[in-house]
Order: sequence, then C-alpha cells, then structure tokens
Amino acid sequence: MYRVDLNCDLGESFGAYKLGVDEEILPHVTSANIACGFHAGDPGVMRKTVTLALKNGVAIGAHPGLSDLVGFGRRQMDISSQEAYDLVVYQLGALMAFIKAEGASMQHVKPHGALYNMAAKSKPLSAAIAEAVYKVDPGLILFGLAGSELVAAGERIGLQVAHEVFADRTYQHDGSLTPRKQPDALITNQEEAVQQVVRMIKEGKVLSRQGQDIAVKADTVCIHGDGKHALEFARKTREYLLNHGIAVKAMGEK
Amino acid sequence: MYRVDLNCDLGESFGAYKLGVDEEILPHVTSANIACGFHAGDPGVMRKTVTLALKNGVAIGAHPGLSDLVGFGRRQMDISSQEAYDLVVYQLGALMAFIKAEGASMQHVKPHGALYNMAAKSKPLSAAIAEAVYKVDPGLILFGLAGSELVAAGERIGLQVAHEVFADRTYQHDGSLTPRKQPDALITNQEEAVQQVVRMIKEGKVLSRQGQDIAVKADTVCIHGDGKHALEFARKTREYLLNHGIAVKAMGEK
Amino acid sequence: MYRVDLNCDLGESFGAYKLGVDEEILPHVTSANIACGFHAGDPGVMRKTVTLALKNGVAIGAHPGLSDLVGFGRRQMDISSQEAYDLVVYQLGALMAFIKAEGASMQHVKPHGALYNMAAKSKPLSAAIAEAVYKVDPGLILFGLAGSELVAAGERIGLQVAHEVFADRTYQHDGSLTPRKQPDALITNQEEAVQQVVRMIKEGKVLSRQGQDIAVKADTVCIHGDGKHALEFARKTREYLLNHGIAVKAMGEK
Amino acid sequence: MYRVDLNCDLGESFGAYKLGVDEEILPHVTSANIACGFHAGDPGVMRKTVTLALKNGVAIGAHPGLSDLVGFGRRQMDISSQEAYDLVVYQLGALMAFIKAEGASMQHVKPHGALYNMAAKSKPLSAAIAEAVYKVDPGLILFGLAGSELVAAGERIGLQVAHEVFADRTYQHDGSLTPRKQPDALITNQEEAVQQVVRMIKEGKVLSRQGQDIAVKADTVCIHGDGKHALEFARKTREYLLNHGIAVKAMGEK
Repeated sequence: MYRVDLNCDLGESFGAYKLGVDEEILPHVTSANIACGFHAGDPGVMRKTVTLALKNGVAIGAHPGLSDLVGFGRRQMDISSQEAYDLVVYQLGALMAFIKAEGASMQHVKPHGALYNMAAKSKPLSAAIAEAVYKVDPGLILFGLAGSELVAAGERIGLQVAHEVFADRTYQHDGSLTPRKQPDALITNQEEAVQQVVRMIKEGKVLSRQGQDIAVKADTVCIHGDGKHALEFARKTREYLLNHGIAVKAMGEK
Repeated sequence: MYRVDLNCDLGESFGAYKLGVDEEILPHVTSANIACGFHAGDPGVMRKTVTLALKNGVAIGAHPGLSDLVGFGRRQMDISSQEAYDLVVYQLGALMAFIKAEGASMQHVKPHGALYNMAAKSKPLSAAIAEAVYKVDPGLILFGLAGSELVAAGERIGLQVAHEVFADRTYQHDGSLTPRKQPDALITNQEEAVQQVVRMIKEGKVLSRQGQDIAVKADTVCIHGDGKHALEFARKTREYLLNHGIAVKAMGEK
Repeated sequence: MYRVDLNCDLGESFGAYKLGVDEEILPHVTSANIACGFHAGDPGVMRKTVTLALKNGVAIGAHPGLSDLVGFGRRQMDISSQEAYDLVVYQLGALMAFIKAEGASMQHVKPHGALYNMAAKSKPLSAAIAEAVYKVDPGLILFGLAGSELVAAGERIGLQVAHEVFADRTYQHDGSLTPRKQPDALITNQEEAVQQVVRMIKEGKVLSRQGQDIAVKADTVCIHGDGKHALEFARKTREYLLNHGIAVKAMGEK
Repeated sequence: MYRVDLNCDLGESFGAYKLGVDEEILPHVTSANIACGFHAGDPGVMRKTVTLALKNGVAIGAHPGLSDLVGFGRRQMDISSQEAYDLVVYQLGALMAFIKAEGASMQHVKPHGALYNMAAKSKPLSAAIAEAVYKVDPGLILFGLAGSELVAAGERIGLQVAHEVFADRTYQHDGSLTPRKQPDALITNQEEAVQQVVRMIKEGKVLSRQGQDIAVKADTVCIHGDGKHALEFARKTREYLLNHGIAVKAMGEK
C-alpha cells in the first residue's frame, strides 16, 4: 500500500502582517511546518496556528529559520554549525511549548528557506541540525530534501526522517532542485506536477532536466500555502493521490 | 530549620556583548534565572549558561522579558494579557529545549524587569503569566515579588510559588519596593542588607520606610550578577545566612 | 480661500509582508507619511515608497514610531524624552537620505501610533520630538493631533505645524479623540464623516460626543491607507472637499 | 610631505551593553567610524558618540553594516546589490541626522565587517555601495580596503576615496589581508606593525607573506578600539608616525 504525507509551511504571519491562507489550506494537508519567530511568525501567531492545526487534526512540526525577518530567512548566511545547532534548539523549544500548552506533541522538524538549502548540501550544518533535534527529542521526525545531506545526517544520528519532494519543481540529474532562477525550474502545468509526484511515490523515480530517470524517495510532498493557486493545487493534489491509490497520512501516523 | 534559595539573573550577554560575571557568581547561588533572548541573551548564550549552571549544580529557571533588547526589558509596555501569555510560553519553551538537550529539567520561571514589575501589580497580567507557566509544565515553580499579585496568581492556578525578597532594597508599608528613583531605595551598607534578609526569613518581617514592621514571606533572595560588588556581596550573604543557621538550598530541592 | 492637506500613512510593508494599497491611494492624497523601519517599513520599502510618492507629486514626510515591529508601534512604551528624541532623529535621518538620493526634500514629520498618542498628551515627550525635528531641519513641518501638546511644542520651538483632524473619528469635549475601544469612536457613515471635516475646515468647529461644539483647527486630514473602503473613502473625501470649495494642497505648498 | 589618517570603529555599544573604550581612544585618532544600529550601536549611542567625536575634533563617518546584531555584522549574508544600496542609504542617513542636529557634517563612509569584506571583492556590491554614498552626498569620502573593488567603485562614480591599510595584519601577494584564521594573519610585535605602516605610507610597498613586495596605497590606517592593548597601540602608532615625519590628519582636512 502506498502512502504519502502532505506538508505545508504555516504560521508565517507576523504582528499586523498577514501571510498565507492557513485556515483554508489546513484541511488539505497532513503535516504543518510552523514558523518559529526568526524568519516569520511571532508568539501570538504560533499559538493560533498550533490551535488551528490541532482543530484540523494536522500533525505539527517546527519550521526553524535563519534570524532574518526582513529577508524571510531566504538569504544564505555564513553561520557556524554551532550557531545552526543553537537556533534550531531555540526555535524548536519555543514552538514545543505552545504545543505542550495545548496538551499535544510535536511530530517533526523541517528547516526553512536558506537554512534548508544550506543544510541539504552541508554535512557539518546537517549534523548540527540533526543533533539539535535529536537531543531535544529523539522521537521527532526530521524533514529534509529527498536524498540530501540533511536526511542522511538524521538517519546517522538515529532519527526517523522524511524525504521531501516537490510536485511543481524540476530536478537535476544529481537529485537537487533546479534553482528557481533558471527558466525551467517550475512545473506550471498542474497535471504534469501531480503525475511527477505519483511516479516518485510509486516508482521511486523522477525524470531529470537532463533527460534521465533518477532515483528519489518520496515520503512527504511540499504543498505551498500562499500564492493564488495554492488552495486549488492542494485540493487537487490530494484528490489525485487518492484516486491513484495513495493514502495521504501524516508521517508519524501508524 | 530555616532555609532559603538564592537566585540570580544570568545569561544576559548577547552576541559580541558580555554582561555579568556568570562563572564567578554561580558557585554562590542556588537558582539561576536565564535570559531567553527577548530582553537579553541569545541562543548561544543560553546554551552556554545552561551548561554552566548544570556544572555548578545550580537549579535553572527561565527569565522571560519584554521584547525590548535595546531597553533591556526595563521599559514598561502596554501589552495585553494574551501577549504576556504568548511571550512567556515562547521564551519558557526556548530555554526548556536547551535544558532538555542537556538531559536536565527546568525548576522555575521568574519574569524579568518591567514584566516582573507590571505583573506584581496587575491581576490580569499575573493570571496570564501563571497560566502560561502552568500549561507548559504544572511542576514549575513561579518566582515573584513577595506578596505580589504574581505569586497570588501562581497559587490560585495550582503552581508552587516562591516569594522573592531583596537584601539591598527598602520596602514600603504596602510591601512594595521603594522605587529606585527615590533616594532611600537602596541599602548600601552590606551588614544592614543581610540583617534585613535574616529577619525576613526568621521572623517574616521587614521594617518599612514608614517605620512599621510589615509581614513578608522570604522564600528566595535576589542576588545581583553584575556591578562591582556583586561577587563579594553574594559570597558574604551566603556566609552570613549559614552562620545564622539558615540552610541555602534551591527552591525545588527537597 | 479654504485649503486643506490630505495625509496618509504609507510604506508600511516589511520584507515579504505587504500592507496597504500605496499605489492606489497616492493619487488621492497630498502628503505621505512614510514608515521608517521601527514599527513598519524597511530600507527597500522606504526607497520604493519615496519614489512612488515623488512620481505622484505627493509631499513626503517621516513617520517615526516606537521600536516595536511586532506590535506595529501601537503599544505605549515607557520611553524617556531622551529616547524619544533619539528615535525621531534616527528615523527622520534614515528617510531623509532616501529622499536626498532622489534629489528631493522632506516636507514634514508625523509621529506614528503610540508615539503620536503619547506625544499628544505629554509635554516633555512633545518637546523632545519637536527639538529632534527642529535640530535636524528647522524647515520641516511637524504634524500632530489638532490642539495637542505636540503642535504646541512645535510652535514653541519655532517649527511650522499642522493640526491634524480625523474625518471618521468622534471627538471628546476636551478635543481628544474618542478612544477606539468605545462604541461611538468611529463614524462609519461616510457622508457624516466628510461633513464633519468640511465643518472643521470652514467653521473651525466639531460637535463633541458630549453634545457641544468645540473649537478645532484643521490643517490636514488623516486618510487611511488600508482597510476595505480606504480607496473609495479617500477619493470621495477629496471630491467632496473640492465640491465645497476647499482646495486640497500639501501643507508645504505655497 | 607625508600624511595619513587614523580611523577607528566607535559607537559599538548597544543598550545596556558597553563595548570599546571610545572616550579613551578618541584623542589618538582622526576619523571615527560610527556604527549605525544594524550590527551595533543604537540611536542613543549614536548621539553620544557623535557628540564625543566632535568634542575631540575627530572627523565623523558612518559605519554601516549588515542587519545582524547577534552576529555583530561579521557573518557574510547573500544580499543583493539593491539591498546593499538600501541599507547603506538608510544607515548613512540615520547617522547624518545626528551629525546635522549638532551642526556638523559627515566626512566619510566605511562599510563594516562582512559588508566591508564582501564589497572588497564584489564589483556589483561595491558599485551599489558607492552609488548609495554618492547619491546621498557626493562630497562624502568612501573608505575601503586599499586596492579593493570598493575604492575602485568609489573612484568610478566620482567620490573621493581612502585606501585603508592595517598595521597589525599581514598581506597576501594579491593585496588581500591574510585571513584571520591563518596562523600568520596578525602582526603581534608592535614595532614591526608600525614599521609596516610607515613603509606603506612612505614607499607605497608592503612585504607579502609570499616574500615579495607589493604596491599598496595607504591613505588611512585602521586603529582598533577594543581589546586590551588598543589604547597603547593607538598612542604608540601616532607617536611613531609623527617621529617619522608623517603628519596625522583626517582625510577630509586640507
């Protein structure tokens, strides 16, 4: 039996600023990555988003990012492994307290933006992040780019990991995502996008931009929570997966 | 048998900025209030301070403050009770993760600066703070100004509380501290200061500026961690207490 | 000949967060109050908003606020007069540089949110703000609540001032605005709102909630830049004023 | 007649945090680079440091840095040229207002830390920074690493520039500084350090770590404002230069 998790970045509003359509997207996903106040989110937004996720029966994860609110955590910074460890522990804990306060527990951790991208390629950064997660709670699941250094580091330390794939992004022959700046980075045709996902789940393969099939593990699919078509795309992806005999379940669900 | 806890604000450095003499003061106190990144402290400082406290066998507490780094959390802000709840949960959790990562557990929570002072007098703020602490972990001890709204709120919700007294501050007849701006706010004579503490512990009384004895409960004494004489004052206070038959133990110790 | 200025808070976006309908509202106003990065705005947003205002021929002012991004500068803080002076000079200068870089010059300064409200009632804070503006450039115009301490302080130090009135807010008999928390704080009927403005401009009077006419000076009217009806309200207000023989001109225009 | 400028980073305190020995070092230097609130400094510190510099007759410059207080602006960030432009204009303006408020004017701009290092090697970043300075005030002097992209960009746009050299750092054969992580990066012998400076000024040459003389222009020497020996080193450098017939004057002085 095939199964997959659908995860989405949520709780990215801040103070007077609203971002994303959290309430509308939650019914369509199984795992919520909640921003922890460094690149987005604030204590009030975190509390509300945790409550909202619980109400929708969606599993909750921390979405720690670089300390760069104005850059939304998307600008790479030359941080040390120790700094990566520290900022993951901090943000993880902050969100965990809101979850505990509601009597629930955290499922996973997925680094955000530039931290996610840097970790995908850096062994020392990934090791530091995996250690941070493991030391706070070895029962947490670490989400990272499929086949990346981050999931490798998670497995090495003894964490359950989730290989994350993207429906609407194209892949390079080395398994990395085509950088957004390149013209063919995005798959805008929705039919094509969901077909790519189904093939990754069922066959463990994706066609790279270079024209060859490469192996890929697909435990969880990234669903975007903002943008015009986010909602429709989320709904259709879920529907399409179910129609193709793929169960949609949170990573931590038995 | 008399006993008292000696608590001190620690981990107040930030990035390149060093504040306080944490390493030197730790051997003299029993409870450390560690800043959580809003008014002081940063993730790296928090990790190091937790490690240092554990090495010294000092019990650890969170020291959440207002989000005002440039003002060191000392400027009152018109925050709502909900905002107070949110910022306590957030900071509490952030520190808790560093403690968990070291295999230890948190003893207490003591609000910092303006948040401490506002909570001392405000029933709604105190209720929100007490609820935040209780919901994250009902086993935590809430530190507040002796006889204040904060300890009352803690007791009401079912938390263990610690009434905090000050050796070097004078008291008003209503039990509040004489505001720092007044000339007779501070007791600069150390002998006089420690005598005041011993009397508060043994007799439950303090002589107010207005000349009358008032009742005061003294569970924990605030020890300053910076300033020229901090270290000498800490050492002498501890010695004086022991010489007067008062055991110096962390609040949570049996 | 009657005349009035229409001012609007602009440039309140931040990083990935968008707030307000700046492009749409600019054709309808004569003075733009641009956020300076403390309560809202960031360097990139400031540059773009300055450019946009210049393109629309709208006079530019600084809109300095408290250092409270998550609270959008709306929470009162217990800052000293010296701190008020410092944060006004800082923010004023930051915006001025963007204006200079475009070869233009600044017309005015209007404190934002809690700083505006605190200054309206506090003589020392107002004096500090007026001094900050005057010392950076005595040719600047200081905007403040009509009849408030802030405009008084501006006049005292020798600045040109602008008494600001609100179309959609009701007034107390002492000239202050009815606090937003009260049920009758807002005038939701647009016709009623613009009539109130016209009367303030032509007769120098407004009917207080207590039922008596009070004197009010109306140099500039606050136009809201967000909210559903902002755009329509701005357009109609301007039209209505013109129809009633009131010229709509920036404060600094001859 | 030989001459040189001695510049020093100042105003790096923040809120309750004190850094550096500004008062003591000022009598020994001719140009002060004042932090502008992004990597260090705050509005109050900026005001005080401007006043202090003026009292000592020291020329004032802005010292803009990356928006990274916890990292003290020392961690490279992947910012765009537009972002570099924006943050230089912003910080430049903020400091300029404090200087104007005291009736004085700004002499120069020297980027700080990672921004300085990134600009030294990046043509687009340097062009953006030079443009920011030029557009705010073409009379400003741009300080950059001797022979770097930054001074080249300054010259290209028409700014006066100052080639900065270091007494206590060793040079590579390409004119770059030996990275601090390498064992021979620092010249700890003070005699050797000042001799290197004198030779750079008089002969325009420095001996690289690779053993060959390379050409270097020395308009201004970086004097450190913190560290144990800062003060002594500053005093001795100045004395040594005077003894070798080199006038010590601010860049902008005729």
